[in-house]
Amino acid sequence: MSATDPATIGIDVGGTSVRAALVDAGGRLRGPLTDVPRAGDLIGQLRTIRAELDGSTGSVAGIAVPGSIDPRSGRIGSAPTAPALVGLGEDDLDSSHLCNDANAALLAEWRHGAAAGVQNVIGLFSGTGVGGGVIVDGSLLVGARGLGGELGHLVLDPAGPVCGCGGNGCLEQFASGTAIARWYAERTGNQRSTAEVARAARAGDAAAAQAFAVAGGWLGVGAAGLANIFNPEMIVVGGGVAAAWDLVEAAFGQAVRVHTMPMIRDGLQVRVGELGRAAGVIGAAAAARHGTTP
Amino acid sequence: MSATDPATIGIDVGGTSVRAALVDAGGRLRGPLTDVPRAGDLIGQLRTIRAELDGSTGSVAGIAVPGSIDPRSGRIGSAPTAPALVGLGEDDLDSSHLCNDANAALLAEWRHGAAAGVQNVIGLFSGTGVGGGVIVDGSLLVGARGLGGELGHLVLDPAGPVCGCGGNGCLEQFASGTAIARWYAERTGNQRSTAEVARAARAGDAAAAQAFAVAGGWLGVGAAGLANIFNPEMIVVGGGVAAAWDLVEAAFGQAVRVHTMPMIRDGLQVRVGELGRAAGVIGAAAAARHGTTP
Repeated sequence: MSATDPATIGIDVGGTSVRAALVDAGGRLRGPLTDVPRAGDLIGQLRTIRAELDGSTGSVAGIAVPGSIDPRSGRIGSAPTAPALVGLGEDDLDSSHLCNDANAALLAEWRHGAAAGVQNVIGLFSGTGVGGGVIVDGSLLVGARGLGGELGHLVLDPAGPVCGCGGNGCLEQFASGTAIARWYAERTGNQRSTAEVARAARAGDAAAAQAFAVAGGWLGVGAAGLANIFNPEMIVVGGGVAAAWDLVEAAFGQAVRVHTMPMIRDGLQVRVGELGRAAGVIGAAAAARHGTTP
Repeated sequence: MSATDPATIGIDVGGTSVRAALVDAGGRLRGPLTDVPRAGDLIGQLRTIRAELDGSTGSVAGIAVPGSIDPRSGRIGSAPTAPALVGLGEDDLDSSHLCNDANAALLAEWRHGAAAGVQNVIGLFSGTGVGGGVIVDGSLLVGARGLGGELGHLVLDPAGPVCGCGGNGCLEQFASGTAIARWYAERTGNQRSTAEVARAARAGDAAAAQAFAVAGGWLGVGAAGLANIFNPEMIVVGGGVAAAWDLVEAAFGQAVRVHTMPMIRDGLQVRVGELGRAAGVIGAAAAARHGTTP
């Protein structure tokens, strides 16, 4: 990229940390990926991060938030893990473009990663919860209030565990990293982080391996139901569970094969996201630079 | 409508019958709704029906088919209950515009019925099976191969009954008219049509009433999961089950309240389709006249 193509600032507000970087027009990081714990004054922290990055560029910024952006008002409508952001708009955040975090991750993979050039894509991002996003005929699914693409709240078992959303048996209750750690704790009595369960699985712990396989199977059931609804060319799986893809792939693939309608399955690619933990930052920048349509 | 606004021919190919009528620009039938049993030579029958209606107008025609239209080729890609149609395109059917039947019913309700003017709509049409369609930001969801909107194949119970699609536990296995009759037969040992079960329910048969309530509950679970994905302004319920709405409404509404995320539920309307069994005919004509976007 030449000096005449200013980089875009991408900021990704997570549940516990904030990531940020300068991103060029090709979706590549121009400089290091900052990853710092969230401060008590989140809004002040975001302004500081932006100002520090702005010094080197003076350009457009995008912020991915763990919440919804109401398309009518442009304001943050809900953000369960970041309530300080609710009601804020671009004007309150130094004219930064706002985007939902899972949608940002999908936009990144769609513009610059595993789903580049694909017109119909489902993104499933499984970590603490299960976030999602959908590209329908080349545009991001937004919905009436910016809550479209909440794929983690597909109901898979109406008698299942209570979900943070108020429902029962949502996909994220079965297929998130949190669900994997919970399943393992219930079976073994050992409280472990998802990363620790993954290490145990790779070291030969059968219960740990099964915890990932069970979650992978449920993620595949959800993906299949979503494929039957959207008929996409591709499903992209990202987030922490994708980093343990070796532990979920077989069960995921089996469930997708069983539950996707044959005509939809035949043309369907499953890909792991290529942009890893930088996806939200790259997508926030891409949304600020390009918007959410072609 | 004036004589200078020629009516459009709408034809709706069902599993056992073919419906047809002339439809004006406002979506009103101009003349009677023909409803005849399907003939052995379906293609010949469609040409005859069109020619008979064409004599009075000489205008555009649309055909709703129980199958998918591949957007790349414009040809019918699958039609389990009408295999004679597979591979046909508009040129093979006297230049008639082709549309999936459930999508046609939704387009009719969206242009001329319960969902007129609404930008994000989910249509669930429960009869022999459960058909569906989705309007996303003012356009019909089509998908990569024209199979988008197969809402009846949302997976609700991966261990549930085998579905005609090859999967298990799809929505239509729990919420179709067929499922209602099956549930009643299993509980009572009496083989009845769905219409007979409805009459029994209204006459005080508790098992019959419960058959509708169970199906209504499942339809509500499916509708809630779909609402969480699409964040629509409205869900329109049509088809035979909608004609027994008094028997399903309470259970449907309860399930939607429990399983829809609160922020999505607050702005959500549920409506029964207004166009009844003419919806497919009106939608086929609307698609031929207007296409599937605004």
